[in-house]
Amino acid sequence: MNRRMVLYTVGTAVKIEAALLLLPAACALIYKENSLKAILISAAICLAAGFALTLVSRPGNKVIYAREGFITVALAWIALSAFGALPFYISGEIPSYIDAFFETVSGFTTTGSSILTDIEAMSKGLLFWRSFTHWIGGMGVLVFIMAVIPSLSDRNMHLLRAEVPGPIVGKLVPRIRHTARILYIIYVVMTVIEIILLIIGRMPVFEAVVHAFGTAGTGGFGVKSDSIAGYSPYLQWVITVFMLLFGINFNLYYLLLIRRFKSVFKSSELWVYFGIVASSTAAITANIAASYESFSTAFRASAFQVVSIITTTGYATTDFDRWPVFSKMILLTLMFVGACAGSTGGGFKIARIIILAKTVKRELKKLLHPRSVSALKFEGKALSESTVSSVSSYLSIYVFLFFAVLVLLCFESFDLETNISAVAACFNNIGPGFGAVGPTLSFAEYSPFAKLLLSLAMLLGRLEIYPLFIALSPSTWTKK
Amino acid sequence: MNRRMVLYTVGTAVKIEAALLLLPAACALIYKENSLKAILISAAICLAAGFALTLVSRPGNKVIYAREGFITVALAWIALSAFGALPFYISGEIPSYIDAFFETVSGFTTTGSSILTDIEAMSKGLLFWRSFTHWIGGMGVLVFIMAVIPSLSDRNMHLLRAEVPGPIVGKLVPRIRHTARILYIIYVVMTVIEIILLIIGRMPVFEAVVHAFGTAGTGGFGVKSDSIAGYSPYLQWVITVFMLLFGINFNLYYLLLIRRFKSVFKSSELWVYFGIVASSTAAITANIAASYESFSTAFRASAFQVVSIITTTGYATTDFDRWPVFSKMILLTLMFVGACAGSTGGGFKIARIIILAKTVKRELKKLLHPRSVSALKFEGKALSESTVSSVSSYLSIYVFLFFAVLVLLCFESFDLETNISAVAACFNNIGPGFGAVGPTLSFAEYSPFAKLLLSLAMLLGRLEIYPLFIALSPSTWTKK
Repeated sequence: MNRRMVLYTVGTAVKIEAALLLLPAACALIYKENSLKAILISAAICLAAGFALTLVSRPGNKVIYAREGFITVALAWIALSAFGALPFYISGEIPSYIDAFFETVSGFTTTGSSILTDIEAMSKGLLFWRSFTHWIGGMGVLVFIMAVIPSLSDRNMHLLRAEVPGPIVGKLVPRIRHTARILYIIYVVMTVIEIILLIIGRMPVFEAVVHAFGTAGTGGFGVKSDSIAGYSPYLQWVITVFMLLFGINFNLYYLLLIRRFKSVFKSSELWVYFGIVASSTAAITANIAASYESFSTAFRASAFQVVSIITTTGYATTDFDRWPVFSKMILLTLMFVGACAGSTGGGFKIARIIILAKTVKRELKKLLHPRSVSALKFEGKALSESTVSSVSSYLSIYVFLFFAVLVLLCFESFDLETNISAVAACFNNIGPGFGAVGPTLSFAEYSPFAKLLLSLAMLLGRLEIYPLFIALSPSTWTKK
Repeated sequence: MNRRMVLYTVGTAVKIEAALLLLPAACALIYKENSLKAILISAAICLAAGFALTLVSRPGNKVIYAREGFITVALAWIALSAFGALPFYISGEIPSYIDAFFETVSGFTTTGSSILTDIEAMSKGLLFWRSFTHWIGGMGVLVFIMAVIPSLSDRNMHLLRAEVPGPIVGKLVPRIRHTARILYIIYVVMTVIEIILLIIGRMPVFEAVVHAFGTAGTGGFGVKSDSIAGYSPYLQWVITVFMLLFGINFNLYYLLLIRRFKSVFKSSELWVYFGIVASSTAAITANIAASYESFSTAFRASAFQVVSIITTTGYATTDFDRWPVFSKMILLTLMFVGACAGSTGGGFKIARIIILAKTVKRELKKLLHPRSVSALKFEGKALSESTVSSVSSYLSIYVFLFFAVLVLLCFESFDLETNISAVAACFNNIGPGFGAVGPTLSFAEYSPFAKLLLSLAMLLGRLEIYPLFIALSPSTWTKK
């Protein structure tokens, strides 16, 4: 294994984190907050650690293989979270390091689960950093590195594959570096448009930026105890629409840019996504309409919550934990469905569900006509059997790990509904669950063990299991 | 499609049901109960309906293909349940036909979920029939037909495949009819041994027979409101051991009979099964020990509940709904694990879990070495890729249907924990769940719609989805 190259890349990521910390530092400076000092100290620590790592590991050989790709991504995400927690801890605004680590993992993985019990007491600088981690994590840290640093690109399809969610990861253009840049440009432009639309709706600039970060990364951190409930219907609809947009495969935006409208129109994942959102919204609206003052309020609340959960953002405009059990069950199902592959959203991904549905259909056909042979197609292209079996294996490992994390979490004495929804919310990078971790409450009551376990679940979910699994497996670290 | 042959076989099954009803009739006669009349009327209706079906459909061509096999099994199970509900309904002991149907489906599918709120008020004849349906359903009705009726055998591997649970169904001996007979002989002998051991422990004969039926079929219907809690530790251990034995693949008993001890010893499914039972029992014992009067009581309660749930029997010696959430979560996990393939137990089956774990391991290997190719082995034999993909598809359709049933069940206003455990308990053919359907309560409070939905879930679980799916799919019934 090319260990030097792994450490070198992780070191570069930590150096970049030092640079990224300058943005919240600027924010703290503008608002003249004490958090400035903590942020700058953290940035200095990142810089020092990053330089130390890159100096000791300057690689001769820059080629990396699949194993290095997975391990780099896993270690980079753990390191970024460990260092990214420093501002919260050093400032004393989150007194426990484990809590700060949980909050930062939740940020980078775009989960949005929080241990904060009084968000509004936090300084603006740290609130900015907290939401900015969503934005960074949404598109991926290593994708960013590939976009900006020439030395790390073009040979590193493995990094892209390990960090971008979905069953099939393709380059948009022949050079990976250009693909990474295109993705980031689309991401930045859409974020800026959302900020402008929020400001037009009279949201204060700081809040507009923070909520745009939370929407773009499909994260869910906000600045208010009641999440998005206090904002006007216009602002709620803007956020609904942008959550929906950030849940779409970014390749489709690229296809729009190069005017291949027909390919976009023919994307089955897109239509299934819209179909699920529309039918879930309709079902929940019908179910809750009686308890809201008007049909339009019920419809807005349904649409917001459905889109927030399926895109795995996790913002809330209402305490959906009090909804009837049918509506809650639809939300719980959507938690597992997740957004489109290649978006910033988490969950199992609609593309995988479509592929699995097709394998089931083929299996039924094979049961009736044992000698029939047929290849599966997805989005107009034939799927290799290796992709098909890889998607099936993903379901298996997903189910195994879900139960494993859930059983361990049940050392905590919360009820089953709370624990099931907590694992569903963290593993699928959503944010709030039901019961004691409902949208008006927080994960603060869990023990440190449970917080580390749920941090692991968030990382497993965001990196789609395999990178962490490979990095944490003993066989990776024993020399053969 | 050979419709005549399908109807003819279903008619034969209903005729056999008429004969089987003579046993509870004899029981009612011995105890001089009024239920005798209701049972005899029901038997007469079965006989008439069975003859009508076989007369109108006497087939010229006895060959059936996979499609007919699945449809026959699905329709036979629905017909047997619909007719089997008659004694309860005609006697008036279960006043609602839907309740009687639910109870009978629960019996034949060896689920053991009950709508009865006062079991001890039922007549002995009907209690006998109720438990006897477990025994019939455990090994399979069509396997029985194949064992006893020459005209329906030897060409009907499809029927065996559709009715015997597990990913790989093999004939023990070249002739299917002999395979079916061997399975039934083992089944009868083990049941009789259990009856004798229960009688030795001073259990009244009637109760010994009924509980042996419930154990052998891994069903769970009993005759007492507190299930098995009132019996002596000896009797509880006898039932524990026999539940464990009936959860083992019957092929292994055949291998024991023909003295191939080494093959039995090398069965990985068997060892995984024992391993899960031992570790779950240990974990729960440690978790609950403090709240029981002695370690041995806690150990006995843990072992009984673990074995009862993993074999999908559903008997209880304690109100496990009051256990700490960690122990409940282990039980919930075991509900999905299920027993060994080829046993009378339900659930996902350990064989499938082992195969899925192997595909995950292979997938990890392939991620690191993309060009590696390796065939999977199970129980010493190479698995065909078609079996591997069939097991993966089974997980997909299992998960899809689980969520579909659960969302629909949530029209009921019970809490999520109750509904999740109700679907888990019915879909995996276990019996009791948690909360409002816990071991001391019943399914009586659910609406008729929910009862029909859960009946469907029980049938889907017992027949392993595909037969019902094919029989209920519109494309099966439209002429092409």
